[in-house]
Amino acid sequence: MEAGHHEAAWRLPESNPRADFDLSHWIRLATVAEAAKFDSLFLADGPALTGSGEFRPPGQLEPFTLLTALSQHTSRIGLIATVSSTYNEPYNLARRLASVDHVSGGRAGWNVVTSAGADEAANFGLDDRPDHAARYARADEFLTIAKALWDSWEHDAVLADKESGRYADPNRLHAVDHVGDHFKVAGPLNVERPPQGHPLLVQAGSSEDGKNFAARHAEAIFTAHQTYERAADFYRDIKTRTAAAGRHPDSVVVLPGIVPFIGSTEAEANDLARQFDDLRVPEYGLSQLAWNLEVEPSVFDLNAPLPDLILQRPKLQGSQSRSDLIIDMAVREHLTVGEILSRLGGGRGHFTFVGTPEQATDTVISWFEGGAADGFNVMAPALPSQLEVFVEHVLPILRGKGLFREDYSGATLREHYGLAVPPNQFRATS
Amino acid sequence: MEAGHHEAAWRLPESNPRADFDLSHWIRLATVAEAAKFDSLFLADGPALTGSGEFRPPGQLEPFTLLTALSQHTSRIGLIATVSSTYNEPYNLARRLASVDHVSGGRAGWNVVTSAGADEAANFGLDDRPDHAARYARADEFLTIAKALWDSWEHDAVLADKESGRYADPNRLHAVDHVGDHFKVAGPLNVERPPQGHPLLVQAGSSEDGKNFAARHAEAIFTAHQTYERAADFYRDIKTRTAAAGRHPDSVVVLPGIVPFIGSTEAEANDLARQFDDLRVPEYGLSQLAWNLEVEPSVFDLNAPLPDLILQRPKLQGSQSRSDLIIDMAVREHLTVGEILSRLGGGRGHFTFVGTPEQATDTVISWFEGGAADGFNVMAPALPSQLEVFVEHVLPILRGKGLFREDYSGATLREHYGLAVPPNQFRATS
Repeated sequence: MEAGHHEAAWRLPESNPRADFDLSHWIRLATVAEAAKFDSLFLADGPALTGSGEFRPPGQLEPFTLLTALSQHTSRIGLIATVSSTYNEPYNLARRLASVDHVSGGRAGWNVVTSAGADEAANFGLDDRPDHAARYARADEFLTIAKALWDSWEHDAVLADKESGRYADPNRLHAVDHVGDHFKVAGPLNVERPPQGHPLLVQAGSSEDGKNFAARHAEAIFTAHQTYERAADFYRDIKTRTAAAGRHPDSVVVLPGIVPFIGSTEAEANDLARQFDDLRVPEYGLSQLAWNLEVEPSVFDLNAPLPDLILQRPKLQGSQSRSDLIIDMAVREHLTVGEILSRLGGGRGHFTFVGTPEQATDTVISWFEGGAADGFNVMAPALPSQLEVFVEHVLPILRGKGLFREDYSGATLREHYGLAVPPNQFRATS
Repeated sequence: MEAGHHEAAWRLPESNPRADFDLSHWIRLATVAEAAKFDSLFLADGPALTGSGEFRPPGQLEPFTLLTALSQHTSRIGLIATVSSTYNEPYNLARRLASVDHVSGGRAGWNVVTSAGADEAANFGLDDRPDHAARYARADEFLTIAKALWDSWEHDAVLADKESGRYADPNRLHAVDHVGDHFKVAGPLNVERPPQGHPLLVQAGSSEDGKNFAARHAEAIFTAHQTYERAADFYRDIKTRTAAAGRHPDSVVVLPGIVPFIGSTEAEANDLARQFDDLRVPEYGLSQLAWNLEVEPSVFDLNAPLPDLILQRPKLQGSQSRSDLIIDMAVREHLTVGEILSRLGGGRGHFTFVGTPEQATDTVISWFEGGAADGFNVMAPALPSQLEVFVEHVLPILRGKGLFREDYSGATLREHYGLAVPPNQFRATS
């Protein structure tokens, strides 16, 4: 889907509709983003076809394979991929993440998701996904194991003493011996501790379970909000929960998504947004809305508000935060289904901004200074074209105000975010 | 372990003992091998620490992460990694393999292993590995699913019709809907069909189960034999089984391993082999022998033959072909345990050659022309140094006889091996 975050981006004249499987497209994106000194590239993902494929590219390269390839064409930018804790094994995934961190020189990040879709479950032997709480309980145990595996080699475990023939000190290679509700894992990992200690841990769900999980584990949070108020509420909430979990509030950075439609005037920006909107196929948007809200597309009427059956039922077992966001937005703004589709077309619920570079700058600064964001996840509606517009016209204004780096000061993703290497749990502090 | 295939390679003066996690080491190896026009790089692997680490590097980067990185520093050489069918999910692994095939331009190969070790089982929630036949039954079902997933996008499924907004033809994206003894997988895959159709399928076990599996699925076989006679027997056997499985015998290439110690004279070659042998730590070799034969190291006496308890018991549930090979070699050549360790130190049971470049050439030609090999897996005892010796001194003689390519004639791994892209099972032939 990476002709851009807008669902119809692939239809633009300048777009490469086969971008997903064209490595040269991705190398260009990574090069543009690194030249602009962004913290990281972030790939959303799930282990199933996205929709039917009829109206939008439904697949993409497995994210860590893609990011590993891109790591060899870049030297500084962080590389964050979404991988499911529900449909992977901790030993395998911890090993892959450690390996990506090694070959990238400490630039790997993992966006932990629990996989809300029944379509995903059906690729892994299940008739339906595990329920929401069970998925997060598994994720919590998964992270506990992964951290232990990443710590299982102390930094000085390898002696490499050619003279004596002693390679490593077995006392500094630690079994994990985890036995829990979901997993039993012996360890140690067969990969040295990653350069970052632990690859950066990212989280993106905003349900109650998701926020509690984030408070315990996340170092960066990608989050979707339609308004400053909602974003600020979330920000306060997550920092409070993080402190309650015994961690410093600064040990997690909160990064709302923003989908920027930038024009040199407001009128131009509106024209640009309309150009994208006109390319939408409503049938696609309806199928996605139906997927998110777990109903059949036939319940919707484009000219009517969301039906009562959606407004009056208990919480879903799927993607709670996204369905809650859609309903909240629809009710607050009295939107018809057709208007909802238009709003979701740009960024699936992320904050859509339409305006001039100066207005964009004012908006992100107001969120940042107003306690709603530590930074942003810039989701350009078309890639690379609209990312290049953002880099060329918005970043210089932020740089002029000292709010965006002129160059990288660190080499690792943790350093870009100002986050420390975690201590090794198996290492006695002296 | 990739300072070399000899277990003590890391102790050589020229070796980088931290080679496993040093990407520059691997880039150099890949560059040397590609400049020499080898078919492929092959990485052995397993999801557990290899031994205690005390006397030999016990870990390595996850192989597909490493090969993906190397794919960006090479353009022709094939990239084959070992991955377990016992401790992975078909959807995830099929997707990763397809993705590596995409980013490498059709150079990915998968060496399917079933994971013989109890230490591996303990990293995946099991008290012991599943038994030998059950592992192969799972592998067979796994391959059936993976092939269907790779075929799930027809080559012309993507329309990318910007004008109409139709991206793909859903009738050319196929559900798999597999329901079997071990797996239930819906599909389709969320990755386009790989450039090779299916990544190249490799197999390396020589047990009865392993050979029957290879006859059904393998396109290349890595195999270990101590003598020409054993290799020729295996070659005839596997080609016969392949034909019996309804496949052309040429649709699988048989590639025995060879560990070459090359000197400009026999005496120099013997000195070189002795230099490696002198660096062995017997304690390490004993622990590996004990692991392979599934006994405690204390049952061995370095100066005595293998104890009767090993010679007189039924087949193991672990690595049958390797334990059978060791016992066969020990009995045939009346070896003491100490002598066995020396023989296994170079290549864990693979054929060890000690001699001049001319003798090496004569040997590989006699195996090739005598119906024991379609090619070889060159396992240099030290890397890259002994690979460079092989490239510089042995390959030119083979080239002079027209038995080694001057340059690549194809772009994909299948083309290097002379193997066709498999037809798509979902495509009606016209």
